[in-house]
Amino acid sequence: MRRTVIGVMGGTEADEATARLAWEAGRLIAERGWVLLSGGRRGGVMQASVAGARAGGGLTLGILYGDDRDDAADGLDLVIPTGLGAARNVVNVLASDVVVACRGTGGTLSEIALALRFGRPVVLLDFDPGAAFLDQCAADARWALAKGAPEAVALVTEFLRQVGRT
Amino acid sequence: MRRTVIGVMGGTEADEATARLAWEAGRLIAERGWVLLSGGRRGGVMQASVAGARAGGGLTLGILYGDDRDDAADGLDLVIPTGLGAARNVVNVLASDVVVACRGTGGTLSEIALALRFGRPVVLLDFDPGAAFLDQCAADARWALAKGAPEAVALVTEFLRQVGRT
Amino acid sequence: MRRTVIGVMGGTEADEATARLAWEAGRLIAERGWVLLSGGRRGGVMQASVAGARAGGGLTLGILYGDDRDDAADGLDLVIPTGLGAARNVVNVLASDVVVACRGTGGTLSEIALALRFGRPVVLLDFDPGAAFLDQCAADARWALAKGAPEAVALVTEFLRQVGRT
Amino acid sequence: MRRTVIGVMGGTEADEATARLAWEAGRLIAERGWVLLSGGRRGGVMQASVAGARAGGGLTLGILYGDDRDDAADGLDLVIPTGLGAARNVVNVLASDVVVACRGTGGTLSEIALALRFGRPVVLLDFDPGAAFLDQCAADARWALAKGAPEAVALVTEFLRQVGRT
Repeated sequence: MRRTVIGVMGGTEADEATARLAWEAGRLIAERGWVLLSGGRRGGVMQASVAGARAGGGLTLGILYGDDRDDAADGLDLVIPTGLGAARNVVNVLASDVVVACRGTGGTLSEIALALRFGRPVVLLDFDPGAAFLDQCAADARWALAKGAPEAVALVTEFLRQVGRT
Repeated sequence: MRRTVIGVMGGTEADEATARLAWEAGRLIAERGWVLLSGGRRGGVMQASVAGARAGGGLTLGILYGDDRDDAADGLDLVIPTGLGAARNVVNVLASDVVVACRGTGGTLSEIALALRFGRPVVLLDFDPGAAFLDQCAADARWALAKGAPEAVALVTEFLRQVGRT
Repeated sequence: MRRTVIGVMGGTEADEATARLAWEAGRLIAERGWVLLSGGRRGGVMQASVAGARAGGGLTLGILYGDDRDDAADGLDLVIPTGLGAARNVVNVLASDVVVACRGTGGTLSEIALALRFGRPVVLLDFDPGAAFLDQCAADARWALAKGAPEAVALVTEFLRQVGRT
Repeated sequence: MRRTVIGVMGGTEADEATARLAWEAGRLIAERGWVLLSGGRRGGVMQASVAGARAGGGLTLGILYGDDRDDAADGLDLVIPTGLGAARNVVNVLASDVVVACRGTGGTLSEIALALRFGRPVVLLDFDPGAAFLDQCAADARWALAKGAPEAVALVTEFLRQVGRT
């Protein structure tokens, strides 16, 4: 049976509050039995979410920007170097059942746009790019703002139900 | 000498007003001697901008979503099928000196996000995803809203000057 | 700790003998505790190797050509749709510690060429594209011909030792 | 009308004889009025074929491995940075009506395999990866060995006729 995969996206650099949120989201995702997918880089939201998922005892999967396995976040179980650069953002999104977006910049925002365009629900964790953007991504865009990791994971659960994954 | 390339992005489907704007932008781009780059699909903004650039006597370049040359917009001089799907959005953006974004959905919005993240200025032609999104794409994001194709092309000219292309 | 990943490559269509070899290779890979990576399509070598790895009780990972999860081989634990088309061949190769190549055509042969170019050892399972090709892929190309799945897996073990994975 | 595009592939490093062949092939391609496509890197076959095409007065198009326009071969008219790494090899091939392959290693050999798999004829210019490889790439593989650039271009002409481009 295909495992449920939750992608946590966000910047390579993150302030302390954002990193803590990503860590907590990763931990809760792992505790639910979901696979954590991230961009797999060292540092920022990627490293923090992987560390959290490790603490939660879950499986972690990283889809790397570059082609070198040694640039992967510590603690990844499965490392997929791509050498695709920003084109790997599409892979991150397509491989996720639901996307959790932490604070980030253009790369993260491109992932949100692609997720909504491909019918992946998006939970925005203390990060708000505005409804003018979110609602124009797709006619049937499913997105929600979350305050804190527990609310984010509750919203993920609800979105999984809506898309028929339980 | 490398030719200046202006990418015109937008949806595969477009209402009449949007298609007319894309056509007009394509024509003015060609008249300035710039190469018109588009996603190269038949229909919508892509087809209209190519038709306009043809009317303006310019060179047209299409970077296709699929791998079949026969799916290209009519009138393209150079057809680059990629088979990359949405990952070709990155190529559209990187190959453009300035991006003109017409009304679109998630695909177009991902291109705006990537353009700003990679330092490509973006002119938004009667399309507004909101400053909350645009300003978070990059610390040094260069973008501007345009009303009508002549204003869009005037803004392109100014951005080209700023990035050192004349 | 990063898990060891063995990629099994080969055609979407396969004769019965080739499919049996792929199944057997998948089973032995799983029994060694390695993750089986494949192109993830239904049918041919991809489906057979996944089925074998399932029989062997291992974790299976598929990197899909298209963007639709429903086109995945039955029994995959982790499904990564890419929509990248043939460009996903690069991802298959980069994510593998060693590549096992079953009988295939241009797609499989491109994966062998890329594997050797990126320093991934290749075991050729009853498939021989000729030394003229193999030796020109890289100055330090590591490749070996295997007759049967047990010999293939013995060669994988030796190559893992050589590249420092144990 | 879509322009005819001939891709010249080969290594980033090239000995003097190979570079001279690539230069001559580029010149003859340009003189026939075809667009020269290359991997667009500085050095080796890529730089030499672009320089030859410039000498022949033709249009040149480079599809870059990296995302930086400043890494492009000198003299390219159209520079398409991709940041896709080796995945851009697929784009090189799909965008070419016929591929001319000069001496290269795994990257070039992957392009030959993909070209034949996607129905693009391949002319091998003083480079022979062996029929065992070439014939297994596709059931209907069209390829030919050429000795010298004039013979290569004569074979390109014949292949263009066969695929219905004149």
